[in-house]
Amino acid sequence: MPQRDSCVVLLSGGLDSATTLAIARSDGFDCHCLSVDYGQRHRAELDAARHIARESGALSHRVVTVGLDAIGGSALTDSRIPVPISGVQPGIPVTYVPARNTIMLAFALAQAEVCGAQHIFFGANAVDYSGYPDCRPDYMVAFERLANLATKAAVEGRAMRLHTPILMLSKADIIRRGVALGVDYASTVSCYQADSSGQACGQCDACRLRRTGFAEAGIPDPTRYK
Amino acid sequence: MPQRDSCVVLLSGGLDSATTLAIARSDGFDCHCLSVDYGQRHRAELDAARHIARESGALSHRVVTVGLDAIGGSALTDSRIPVPISGVQPGIPVTYVPARNTIMLAFALAQAEVCGAQHIFFGANAVDYSGYPDCRPDYMVAFERLANLATKAAVEGRAMRLHTPILMLSKADIIRRGVALGVDYASTVSCYQADSSGQACGQCDACRLRRTGFAEAGIPDPTRYK
Repeated sequence: MPQRDSCVVLLSGGLDSATTLAIARSDGFDCHCLSVDYGQRHRAELDAARHIARESGALSHRVVTVGLDAIGGSALTDSRIPVPISGVQPGIPVTYVPARNTIMLAFALAQAEVCGAQHIFFGANAVDYSGYPDCRPDYMVAFERLANLATKAAVEGRAMRLHTPILMLSKADIIRRGVALGVDYASTVSCYQADSSGQACGQCDACRLRRTGFAEAGIPDPTRYK
Repeated sequence: MPQRDSCVVLLSGGLDSATTLAIARSDGFDCHCLSVDYGQRHRAELDAARHIARESGALSHRVVTVGLDAIGGSALTDSRIPVPISGVQPGIPVTYVPARNTIMLAFALAQAEVCGAQHIFFGANAVDYSGYPDCRPDYMVAFERLANLATKAAVEGRAMRLHTPILMLSKADIIRRGVALGVDYASTVSCYQADSSGQACGQCDACRLRRTGFAEAGIPDPTRYK
């Protein structure tokens, strides 16, 4: 039997990354999961990531802690900036974390080098997060190019591939795909300000996008709201 | 009087980044310094960075802490891998930290976004560190391209520039340039395993490159060796 390829999956504990992990598995990859604790307002998301990684039979799950509060500039890393709850607005929201995807992908690249993996799976989405510059397809192409110049593996001629399987899917389509793959969305936490047990506020942008996604997909929403 | 441009300078506390900071200042930039504490074996380098930032009159100095030990794979972040002391060898050394420059530049990019700076100064060197894939000019070009797709500023049409003024200089030329700009090299720490007071081992690759640089430049070496 040929050896299966391994990959690194960035796993936040939210709906998008849990679906991405399920897609990586169904594509035949053995998965190393990587979560980044960047001072999010709550830990329920990381607890969810641990649970999802374990249930999926991942080869490993690592959590990298990074003090982005030293840099600040986002409602998700600076407790003085409130999370908006009045509905999704046009433009870049205050929940945008400066250079967040570049930072997360840099860690994934490091993890891939250490594990000898040539594939990174990343659950970014350009549809719901059209206001985030680092969620666009051009950005993903540029990161893959960088990755292929950045690593030992690249120097030795082994290409690094960045997979973004849900980049162009609507939230409803992501949910339909995940349900078909058996994702247990009750275990995932999307809310920007969930409580310690993982209960969602139902009012932040992440909650609104998620709730609308389940409604549009015609699938019962298993989220535990406060 | 026109307002001076601001920049972010990655400042490790070593010789190269201290010289890069002096160059940024002499190019007319106001400097925000950023150090990354990624679990290096010693803290003397970060203490040196704090001292150098303060003496240079930097607008700010931030230290981002990141637990790269969760990822491992380098003698600089995994205490079980010894630092080599038998001389500089061809190829990629075990002191290479996977994706280190991508991680550091990602933080610099975040800092630049938060400060509204459109310039990043990075003291990478492609001559002495020819074995490090992420020290090559092609890599720097690819990162600048990524940065121009990654940020709010890019979306709004303000370009981000990555300056690597010492990329192609020999260690001797870096030292000559720094001395001409008044850099106090006695304050800098290059050693991979300096003690807590900043005394250098004199045997690791970083010490060897630094010592040879002073000798070639014909400038007395102010390093405090054990």
